[in-house]
Order: sequence, then C-alpha cells, then structure tokens
Amino acid sequence: MKQVTLSTYVLTRLKELNTNHIFGIPGDYVLPFFDEILDGDHGVKHIMPRNELNGTYAADGYAKQNGFGAMAVTFGVGSLSCTNAVAGAYADDTPIVVISGTPTVDVLNTPTERRYHHVIENDFNTNIKVFEHITVASHRVEKIETAAFEIDNMLRKAMQYKKPIYLEIPYDLQTMLVDVPSKPLDLMLNQSSSANLNEALDVVSKILHNSKTRSVVTGHLIQREGLVKQGVELVDQLNAAVATTFTCKMGDFEEHPNSIGIYMGEVSEDYTKEMVDGADVSIGLGVTFNEFDTGVFSTKMGKNQNVIWLRKDYVEVNGKRYDQVFLREFLPALLDAVKDIQPGEIALQNRRKFAFELADRFEPTDDALTIDRLFVQFSNYLEKGDMLYGDTGGFINSSQAEFPADVIMHGCGNWGSLGAGFGMYVGANFANEANNRRSISIQGEGAFTMSAQDLATLIEHKKDLALFILDNAGYGAERAIHPGKERSYNDIAVWKYEKLGEALGGTEGQDVHSFVAHTEKDMAEIFAHLKEPKGINIVRIMLDPNDSATFNLRFSQLLQH
Amino acid sequence: MKQVTLSTYVLTRLKELNTNHIFGIPGDYVLPFFDEILDGDHGVKHIMPRNELNGTYAADGYAKQNGFGAMAVTFGVGSLSCTNAVAGAYADDTPIVVISGTPTVDVLNTPTERRYHHVIENDFNTNIKVFEHITVASHRVEKIETAAFEIDNMLRKAMQYKKPIYLEIPYDLQTMLVDVPSKPLDLMLNQSSSANLNEALDVVSKILHNSKTRSVVTGHLIQREGLVKQGVELVDQLNAAVATTFTCKMGDFEEHPNSIGIYMGEVSEDYTKEMVDGADVSIGLGVTFNEFDTGVFSTKMGKNQNVIWLRKDYVEVNGKRYDQVFLREFLPALLDAVKDIQPGEIALQNRRKFAFELADRFEPTDDALTIDRLFVQFSNYLEKGDMLYGDTGGFINSSQAEFPADVIMHGCGNWGSLGAGFGMYVGANFANEANNRRSISIQGEGAFTMSAQDLATLIEHKKDLALFILDNAGYGAERAIHPGKERSYNDIAVWKYEKLGEALGGTEGQDVHSFVAHTEKDMAEIFAHLKEPKGINIVRIMLDPNDSATFNLRFSQLLQH
Repeated sequence: MKQVTLSTYVLTRLKELNTNHIFGIPGDYVLPFFDEILDGDHGVKHIMPRNELNGTYAADGYAKQNGFGAMAVTFGVGSLSCTNAVAGAYADDTPIVVISGTPTVDVLNTPTERRYHHVIENDFNTNIKVFEHITVASHRVEKIETAAFEIDNMLRKAMQYKKPIYLEIPYDLQTMLVDVPSKPLDLMLNQSSSANLNEALDVVSKILHNSKTRSVVTGHLIQREGLVKQGVELVDQLNAAVATTFTCKMGDFEEHPNSIGIYMGEVSEDYTKEMVDGADVSIGLGVTFNEFDTGVFSTKMGKNQNVIWLRKDYVEVNGKRYDQVFLREFLPALLDAVKDIQPGEIALQNRRKFAFELADRFEPTDDALTIDRLFVQFSNYLEKGDMLYGDTGGFINSSQAEFPADVIMHGCGNWGSLGAGFGMYVGANFANEANNRRSISIQGEGAFTMSAQDLATLIEHKKDLALFILDNAGYGAERAIHPGKERSYNDIAVWKYEKLGEALGGTEGQDVHSFVAHTEKDMAEIFAHLKEPKGINIVRIMLDPNDSATFNLRFSQLLQH
Repeated sequence: MKQVTLSTYVLTRLKELNTNHIFGIPGDYVLPFFDEILDGDHGVKHIMPRNELNGTYAADGYAKQNGFGAMAVTFGVGSLSCTNAVAGAYADDTPIVVISGTPTVDVLNTPTERRYHHVIENDFNTNIKVFEHITVASHRVEKIETAAFEIDNMLRKAMQYKKPIYLEIPYDLQTMLVDVPSKPLDLMLNQSSSANLNEALDVVSKILHNSKTRSVVTGHLIQREGLVKQGVELVDQLNAAVATTFTCKMGDFEEHPNSIGIYMGEVSEDYTKEMVDGADVSIGLGVTFNEFDTGVFSTKMGKNQNVIWLRKDYVEVNGKRYDQVFLREFLPALLDAVKDIQPGEIALQNRRKFAFELADRFEPTDDALTIDRLFVQFSNYLEKGDMLYGDTGGFINSSQAEFPADVIMHGCGNWGSLGAGFGMYVGANFANEANNRRSISIQGEGAFTMSAQDLATLIEHKKDLALFILDNAGYGAERAIHPGKERSYNDIAVWKYEKLGEALGGTEGQDVHSFVAHTEKDMAEIFAHLKEPKGINIVRIMLDPNDSATFNLRFSQLLQH
C-alpha cells in the first residue's frame, strides 16, 4: 500500500475539506510539518500571516467561505497565541483546526527536571488542557499506528459540530509514514432521531398549515450548514416575510421580494418588528440570537404568536423541545412537508427596512462625511456577490445597510473580538481565489490597528481589494455605549493609513493605491474609481470622533450595563 | 472609614508594588474600571497598547524593570488574547496581573439560555479555567465584602512565586465601595524552614571553605528577587570566577574583574567552560537552566566538581535537596557564613570570553554588514546602565556580546515567543520613566513584525530610543536550526521599516528618525549619531538572508532535533 508522511496525510484530509491553503507560522517543533507542506503531494499551499492570532483569524475567515480552515504553529508560544481566535470560531460555529508541533514522543514521556523552552513547569500538556475549554477536541497523537484514525475522528467532530479542534503532532511523528487514505473522509455525521424529527415535523407542519401570516428570521447556522438555498425555498413556499440578523446578514434574503429588513428586537425598524412579531407564526431559521440579534434581549418574537426555532441540533416549538433533530435533516424534510401549502398572506409595505437603504441615495456634497450618509453611499456601492468583511464600526454600520443578492459579510459575529474582522478578511482573500467575488473590507480603526500588520500578507500576495478604514481617532463603538464621558482611553493616536501600504512592502501607485476621503464628493469619486479594484486600495475615511449613526445611539442605549 | 471603589483599591495596591502604569484595552465589561483609572486617586496612569497580547508583553517587560506589571482587558475577547504572554511571564518568573471585567454578578449567576457575546456555551468560567493552567491564581471576585481580601491574597501569591495571576472583576463590583487599605500590602512571603536552611548552610559553607577554586553561574532569579548586589558580593567574598547565562545576562557580572563570559554548556567559549566546570566547586546562583543555558543540555557543570544549586525555593548540593529554603533568605545567610572565608584562587587568563568582545573593535569598512562584525560594533556601542530588549536574532546575538556594568537585557528568556521582545520593550519604556536608562532595542524582523503596531504607542508617548531591526528577509534563527533547505516558509515579504514611523503616526525628521544601514561605515556613523537618542530612531540593518554568526552555527547544530 502506498504510504505518505503523517503530515501529508493531514494535508490530504484538509484538501478534501476544501481547504486549499493552510496558514502557518513556522517554529522549531513544527518544521518537519512545514517541509511537508512544501514537499508533500496534497495540493495545499502555505500562507504566512504575520502572527499566530492573525493567522487563526484568517483560518476562521477562510472557513466561513470554504467550509474549513487550518492554522499551523509551534508549541506553546505559537498555540497559546491562537486561543482568542479559536474561541471566536467556537462562538461562531466555524470549523477550523489549529495544528501544533511538539517535542518528540520520547521527550514528552520521559520524566525530567530539565527545563525546556516553550514549556512551563515541565508540563507538556498545558496547551492541550487550555484548548479543551474552547474546542470540541483537543488532542495529541502519540502512536503512529492509530494517528490517522484519531485525526479523522477529530476532523469529523469539527464538521459535525461546526466547531474548532486543536491537534498536536510530535516532531518525530510529523515525518513518519502512514497508509494513503483509501477513500475520502467519511464524515459519519450524527443522524437525527427519526421519532423526534417526525414528531417535530408534524407539529411544525400543522402550525404552518393553520397560519395565515408567517415570518422567517434567518441566522448563521443555515450558512454554516450550506442551507441558504433551502432557506430561500422555505420563504418562497410559505410566502413568508423574511428578515436577516446582525450575526449573519445574507444578501439572498435581503434582496428577496419578501424582505422586511434586519431584525434586532426593539432596535429594528418599526416595519421589521411589526412584520416579524405580528405574524401568526415566526420561524427562527438557524439563528442563535445573542444580545445584538435580540436588541439586548428586547425581542418580542414568539410572545404573541406561534414560534418555531430550528437550531443546529434541535427544534423547539412554542417552548417544547425536540432533541437530536438536525437542521440539515429537518429543513429538507420541512420543505417536503409544506410543498403544497397555501401561500401565506403578506402585507408588504413601502416602509423603511434598513437604516441605510439603496433608495436613500443622494447627490454627494462638499460637506464633511457623516456615518449616516456615508453608509448610504456604501450601501449603493455594494454589488451582487460582494465579499465583505468588517469590524466594529465597519461591521455594525454595514449590518444596517441593505445588501444586494448573494453579498456575504463576516466579522464581529457572536464573539465580537476587535481585530478579528481584518484577520478573517486576510484569510477570506485566499478562499476567494476560487470564488472570485469582489473583495471589500470596512474597518473601524481601533479594531484594524490590532491586526494591521497582516495588510503585508495581502500586499505580498498581490490581492485585488478595497479596504476602507473609518478614522475617528478612537473606539467609536465604546464612546457610544459609555457616553457622556470624554474618556481618553477611547482615543487612539492617529496613524497615517495612506502611508501604511508603502511601509508594509507595497509601492504606492503600483501595487498599492491610497486615498484619503474628507467629503461626500471624495467618497463618491473613490467608490466610482473602485468599481473593480485592482491591487491593494486603502481608503482612509475621515470622521468626526463623536459622530455616530442614528440607529446606533438607540442600540448603544440598550447595551449600557 | 474612608472608602474607595474596588477599582481604585486594586490600583492603589498596584502603585504600592511600584506599578505606576497600567496597560489596557477598554471594552464593554471593563469600562467602569477604566473610568476609575482616570478618575480615582491612586497615581496609576493608563497606557493603551495596540492589542491585548502586546499589552501583556508590555506588562511583562514593565515588571522586569519595576517588579510588577498590570494589563486590563474586557471579558473573553480581551483576556484570551493575553494567554501566550501570561504563559511567558510564568516561564520567566515574572509577576504580572491581567485584570478582566465580566458581566454583572447577577448575570453570571442567573442560569439562562440567552447567548451573550464574548461567551461560549453560556459558560462564564471559560477564561478562569483557561488561566488556571498558566497562572498561580485565576479567580473572580463576586462578593464586595471579601473582594479586597481576596485580591490582596492573589497579589501576595504573585509576589511570593514571582508568577502571573488572572483576576476577574464583575462590571457592578468595579464601582462598589470598599475601605481604603489601612496600611500597605503585607506580602507575608513564605518563610524558609529554619532547620533545612541551617542544614543546607552548613553543608554549603563546608564545601566552600574546603574549596580552592570556585565558579558562580548567575541566573534570572537573583534579578527577579532583587539580589543582584548580594550576588556580586558573593562573587567578591569567594573570589569566584563568574559567568552569566543566556536567559538573563547582567552587566554587573560581565564587567566584574572575575568575569569569564557567558556560560552555555558546550556552546560556551573554551575558557568559560574550563573555568566553570573545572573549579573545585560551582554555584548555580538563581539559575533554572533551559536548553539554551545548558547548550541543549550539554553542560558538564557538577559532573567532576562539587555543585551547589540555589533555586528560588530550595537548595541542592551534589544531588541532595533541601526544600523550603528560599533564595532571598539563603543568600544573605550564606554571605554571612562566608564573610571570613579564604579568597579562592583564580587563574584569570586573557582568553576569549564572548563571541563579541569590546576588544574586537575594528576600523569600519565599506563592506556589507555581517552579523559577526555587526555585533562587535554593537557591543562597543553599549554603555553602562543601558536598557536593552531584544528578540530572536537581536537577543541571541546580543547575548554573546560583552556588556558594560549594569546593562540589563530582556526578551526571549525561558519562553522564547517571537514578538515578545518588542512587546516587552514597549512596556519597559514606561517603567524607565523613573530609571532613565538609555533605551535600546534590537529585533529580528520576523519577531518584530508580529507586534510591530505598538511602535505607535512609543511614538504617541514621545519616547527617546534607538530601535535596530535586523532585516534578513526572514526567520534567520529558523534557517539556522533547520539548515540545508531553502524553505520559503522562512521568508518574510520585505517591509520598508524606514517608512513605518510615519505610517504609525510619527513625522519623519521631527519625532521619528529613520536610517538604513548597508555597510560597517553606515553603522559606525549611526551608532555615533545615536549616542544619546532623541525621539524615535529606527535603524533598518540590511543583512544577507543566509548570514549567521559563527557561534550560532555551533548552537544551532545542537538545537536540531
């Protein structure tokens, strides 16, 4: 039987999971694995981010496009730097693997008073123990005979739960030989309880058939499970009003004729609230609902109506829960059950659905930019199929803009780590090699500067993109949730973002193009110029430090503790 | 009794520990604490780093000067970003605290299916559990009545063990009132067992009195315990040959007349090895000895001689261990026991002690720079009392240079995380406000770029310093330990470091001065120019990617696994 190194085995499995790139920072204990990335026959390419946290964000952002992401690091100093991004992938139901090299099996298992670097208290299990709290599998393979089997099981777990895993491979095992897999990884995904599924289906189907008006609120789980098309089909079958959520906006629903905007409990536009909460029945379709999605738990969904929650692994109907019913099995079954249903009545009105709508477009003036008007311009800049990654100010405001079909946006999600939005965006640009979406990022500067050095990675790989940086000299989102105080801790010393591309290795006017926008007309020109961005385009958008979107003031009031 | 907020209470304690600055990134759950940093009466100033990992490195670098360091963050997204630096502080016996805000006590203790951002699986204890593996105390205060007491105990533990701690303070407790402390924190440090101490003292004293030649190898623990002066006194009393170590070079010993260089087992210069391993008795004075210090465990110290290890909390003599004997109590007792000892014989010779010695100085040429000659120039640039922080190439090579008296250097230490050296340096510049040492950093670029954005913090605070960046377009240290392979994963796309100061907010020629050095003459001019650096001086040092120091080739061979 043909054999390959264990490293190439792992990389082969990654490739099967549509992971064509692996992010990684080399380091002593993982160098043989890196050799295998270069030398092995597996089709996976190495991308070097500028640090381990950014690289793990990148793997997460990659997975959000391609279904799975990977980051390789060395022991301790590498792996521990990944924790925040791994927790973020967990919170956001995104499967990634962090692969860490370790000392040899012999060293790991020989009791010693020797003190190794990258190790504390001679405990070689510190990292494994740390990752147990933020992954669904944290494990070191130590026997070559069973290593491939154990790795397959870990990958299955990541895909089953859509969660991160942490894998340690000792230095010596990285080059040991194992059999080439005889067939692609069988995911062996858990199956629903058919009794529970059928019971839930009966109840749900009955409620839907007995309803006249219906609403659907869509969440990130249908995207993670690859069920967006089926979600649209459900909306069509039911003729339901449909709203997206903060955690996962999806253009396919916002461009749907039945779109009623973005639902955020009491923070929503009135029309959106009325249509969601006022229907006979509302379906939470793959939502998890954190305080953002619920307008800080102010939602009235399900209070005066039937409510159906389709979660990843259970269904809940008016408070009764049907366990072990998986979304990926329930949704197709439901589509079948309602295929002849009477279309719902729907009283669509020409009222405001989003804080920033396409129809709000205006003639740009020489006035200074404000967020309220900037995001109307931005909404009109977006096109079908755009790939958009944002962070804080960029994400929060973009979330309130009307999206054309098939626009995808990621960034803050359920975890909300500053710096993640740009880190993810770096990774997404590699996933995008096959997809070829227009690549756009819009970043609050406070977040952007946290992972800014990875702009160098995008420059190095000659990506085509438009990066918008909101410069309000500080943490605007925090000024808003903790107002009435001129607090210096929310101020950030001003960078010259228009000079960053050169410093990080680009050449202005060749592979990097920098812009500074002060007025609406500036922005209009820049947006027109960046219709098809070539090279790295960096746009510094000058804003008043105390400017905040009107909708955001309402939201921030609820967020004050 | 006068009362203050719990936040001000904590800050008052920090001030007592000589922590005059707290690093911190604000975030939702910790904003009241940040208000108290600004408003409270405690004398501690807020410094904003550009991300949480860098800020924790900064707290570590600060503690290495001032004895204690602090970093404040928000829940989860903030705290988990600190883990790698916290583990580094642990490995390097450096006391710091990471303070994290959390949701209110009420939210923490109300079971709910609500999904909060910054939280996974509704488990509010994830961070506490993660930090248990990398601190000596990981704890959340939840009762205002006992909070001050609990915090005092945690700080004591950090100071006792010289290790990091992790403290969570719920949002509502941050502004609750507690009594002003009636007196400064009583550290209540653990006491030695007097029986064990006396027994060890007898044995050690006897061996020393019976010896003719003696050697001392100094380690970082005498610095952490503030015992450097006593260490010098011991060397004087014994008339011992003295060597420093890789983990903690100290100019006070290298400039001592009895200096025999830096000890690294078989990697040491021959003279150093002979003098350490060949004495009748050798004392490991506060060393812990990792693979760097021991030349990858090649050391022969104690093989053919009496050997005395003075550890933080025990003494070991020729394999017999005396537990619960603390260095800070044993060393003064030992000084007393040997005060009338016959001075040792010492056969000092005029042989090489360091790879790079002052006496190697040469007339600079127009030749391209090489590491072997650059570090001779660098050694001659150093002056008494300099504060030096390095990373990888910068640290490893500097460690082999002869240091003038009182020069202190930090960076890689026991943990060896790329990026830590610069992060620590940022913090050290604030600790240095009272000390006013000449501030120098020498960074391998692969490491520097990992935490590069915090150059902005130094620019913002108008520090005076010289930052040298070794530009060999990649990870030179890794090329050396994994040689014979032209591996693209060790290459880093080239930045223009001379343009970074402007991009990160400085103004070239005013507060930022950038240099590019190609030749020995370039470096000579730059070193002369930077005798008293004013403002931020950035020196990009161009090196051949495959250049490596001669000593380092020997070292790297041992490090190959």
